[in-house]
Amino acid sequence: MKKMRMVDVIDQKRNGKELSDEEIQFFVDGVVNGSVPDYQISALLMSIYFQDMTDRERASLTMKMMESGEHLDLSDIPGIKVDKHSTGGVGDKVSLPLAAVVAAVGIPVPMISGRGLGHTGGTLDKLEAIPGYQIEISDEAFINQVSKEKLAIIGATGGIAPADKKIYALRDVTDTVDSIPLIASSIMSKKIASGTDALVIDVKTGSGAFMKTLEDSTALATALVEIGKSVGMDCMAVISDMNQPLGNKIGNSLEIEESIDILKNKGPEDLRELVLTLGSYMVILGGKAEKFDEAKQLLEEAIESGAALDRFRAMIKAQGGDETVIEDYSIMPQAQYKFELPALKSGVVAKLTADEIGIASMMLGGGRQKAGDQLDYAVGIELHKKIGDKVEKDESLMTIYSNREDIEDIKSLIYDNVEIAERAEKPQMIYKIIK
Amino acid sequence: MKKMRMVDVIDQKRNGKELSDEEIQFFVDGVVNGSVPDYQISALLMSIYFQDMTDRERASLTMKMMESGEHLDLSDIPGIKVDKHSTGGVGDKVSLPLAAVVAAVGIPVPMISGRGLGHTGGTLDKLEAIPGYQIEISDEAFINQVSKEKLAIIGATGGIAPADKKIYALRDVTDTVDSIPLIASSIMSKKIASGTDALVIDVKTGSGAFMKTLEDSTALATALVEIGKSVGMDCMAVISDMNQPLGNKIGNSLEIEESIDILKNKGPEDLRELVLTLGSYMVILGGKAEKFDEAKQLLEEAIESGAALDRFRAMIKAQGGDETVIEDYSIMPQAQYKFELPALKSGVVAKLTADEIGIASMMLGGGRQKAGDQLDYAVGIELHKKIGDKVEKDESLMTIYSNREDIEDIKSLIYDNVEIAERAEKPQMIYKIIK
Repeated sequence: MKKMRMVDVIDQKRNGKELSDEEIQFFVDGVVNGSVPDYQISALLMSIYFQDMTDRERASLTMKMMESGEHLDLSDIPGIKVDKHSTGGVGDKVSLPLAAVVAAVGIPVPMISGRGLGHTGGTLDKLEAIPGYQIEISDEAFINQVSKEKLAIIGATGGIAPADKKIYALRDVTDTVDSIPLIASSIMSKKIASGTDALVIDVKTGSGAFMKTLEDSTALATALVEIGKSVGMDCMAVISDMNQPLGNKIGNSLEIEESIDILKNKGPEDLRELVLTLGSYMVILGGKAEKFDEAKQLLEEAIESGAALDRFRAMIKAQGGDETVIEDYSIMPQAQYKFELPALKSGVVAKLTADEIGIASMMLGGGRQKAGDQLDYAVGIELHKKIGDKVEKDESLMTIYSNREDIEDIKSLIYDNVEIAERAEKPQMIYKIIK
Repeated sequence: MKKMRMVDVIDQKRNGKELSDEEIQFFVDGVVNGSVPDYQISALLMSIYFQDMTDRERASLTMKMMESGEHLDLSDIPGIKVDKHSTGGVGDKVSLPLAAVVAAVGIPVPMISGRGLGHTGGTLDKLEAIPGYQIEISDEAFINQVSKEKLAIIGATGGIAPADKKIYALRDVTDTVDSIPLIASSIMSKKIASGTDALVIDVKTGSGAFMKTLEDSTALATALVEIGKSVGMDCMAVISDMNQPLGNKIGNSLEIEESIDILKNKGPEDLRELVLTLGSYMVILGGKAEKFDEAKQLLEEAIESGAALDRFRAMIKAQGGDETVIEDYSIMPQAQYKFELPALKSGVVAKLTADEIGIASMMLGGGRQKAGDQLDYAVGIELHKKIGDKVEKDESLMTIYSNREDIEDIKSLIYDNVEIAERAEKPQMIYKIIK
């Protein structure tokens, strides 16, 4: 057989032809063992950006990247394991109440989450606002905890999908991030490696989402679900709104508070709606209900009975955290200053740009500008008004929790991204379900 | 001003927008000083492959690459200096007789040539078949020689267009060679750096050319001429045939013989036609004639009078070569074996694939498979029949000059690429002139 050459693989894709499994394997192997240099990786990535990949190629790339590293075997955990993934947004603390409420109806939720970068926060960072909470635990401890408590939220081990790690770093600097086959294979390779049986994906859409239009979000959601199905993972996607931050609170301690509020049958309506929607589909995939309404009722009961809150408490305890946080939020870091941001005129909130509110929270210290930055768990923003809400002049739009006294830069950034008009509609929360 | 980032430059081009002069400068500077890593260079190159460049961008990239290195100042040489460039083909020894015949009518020809790689030979390699010929001489000696003798053919100094050198090496391994803006800016940056006033470009077309179709060849020729004009260089292009080797001889010593034959008013008709056509346009650009026929007559006279041969002799002598080669070809390396290749049936030659005949010559030792390979100047192929020529069964199609006795591999490669049919037309030599 003729020896394969990377330049020929690039040529195939550049000319719009389908890559074979062998060619994709050759590429992924070369990425991991270093025999394919970065400049050839980036040439192929850019060709994929322009020429796309077929469903077969996407599934193949996903599997080869998955196989490039470690993968968890969760078969010792009884039941259908169901995880959730989100494409990320501002104020998105959904994973926290969701894992608890789904676990409360008896479905094992083995959740592997990430840290935040830029304007979006990370689930792991939020959990670390709880004193003592450990996000790094052994595979064995993870499996035991999910078996016993039905849920765990931990960080990925370093050995998962090394090909993706390398490719992702290159995509970031070669302008090949926004390619659907590359996004989808990156997400799915890690999710398949995490060993879950089923997956509900929350694909955000709108000004604060990676995919700004419903069309793009639908394409990504479809790509993710198709890859999942093709490898035998039970998969579906929900397209949800990210034109404004999700819920009312942004910031690490603040988002833990709001998550616990949801489990206490309180908390903002939009967040509750999304948790119940994603949760209902997880319950269906987990085999505990057949219809949406039935599933949703199970979840509502789990909240009302306190079972969901109990699961959250059990998880915190199992992972070394101080579970008294559930009754006393003040054991988490608290900000030194609170500032109210008054409305400059009366009207209806028409714009509340998620990205920039996220950046404001990051600038307060709640997020990372670059990997490795230290976080301030205490700071953040609490919205009192959301799009479609009436507001009077001088009424507070939001509270800013800060550890510095001068926040003129934050205020001016936020005012630039809040609009008060004569009228505005509340955006819908759920746009579409992709099965 | 905001600091420029390479990822944003890539993004502009990837999204089909025009790059500014500043962005192109930033890129070229980064290539030369190493601040732009290879993976970002290749991402931009692939984006250019897909999105093309406007005339303004092409001219800008050419000039920035030219300015990245040394450039010759030939203003001390009196008269309009005219050079010729070819996109390369098998048996293409045109530069050798052409430089002499144009110089003979009083036009200074400062020719900077290259070495061969793969199936095409290089002018410099052919000249080195002449004992003693030096292709590396100082700028000062080059200028003096062109002033005095009207011609010189030398190799490029290492300092010309270093940005192009780096980019060219990357294009080769990232499948971005066949991009018209990249080809055109690469050629023209070096030609502008070489200091010539005017340039005639021989763009090959056909199965043995880099550009296989007349359409692609026309696009490249137009791109080259446009760049030349935009920087004030008097420029035109001739599109000529490369469906079969040019002339009858392929190989280094053999091509020197055929070149000298042309200057002796002998040699094959197709080669003579191309030399006179390119030469006539050089004479027009050099200001020695206004009309094609007038220019051509000057060249024919220069051949008949022996003036052209005299110029070739003067060049060999000035560059340290043994000028007795003109009378005695046997002072060049001679092959140990000669094999005739008989026609397998009677008919008309219908195919004589240039690429593969070139590869056969390379396999004999006449060309390089990779940079740095040693050449055997003696070996090569002499065609006795070309496309459109009648041939009888067992009549010799060609003579193979070899230094090895077993050439079964060569024979079978050649037979695979020769076709004898009932009828076939002689291909035309000149397809188009682009001014």
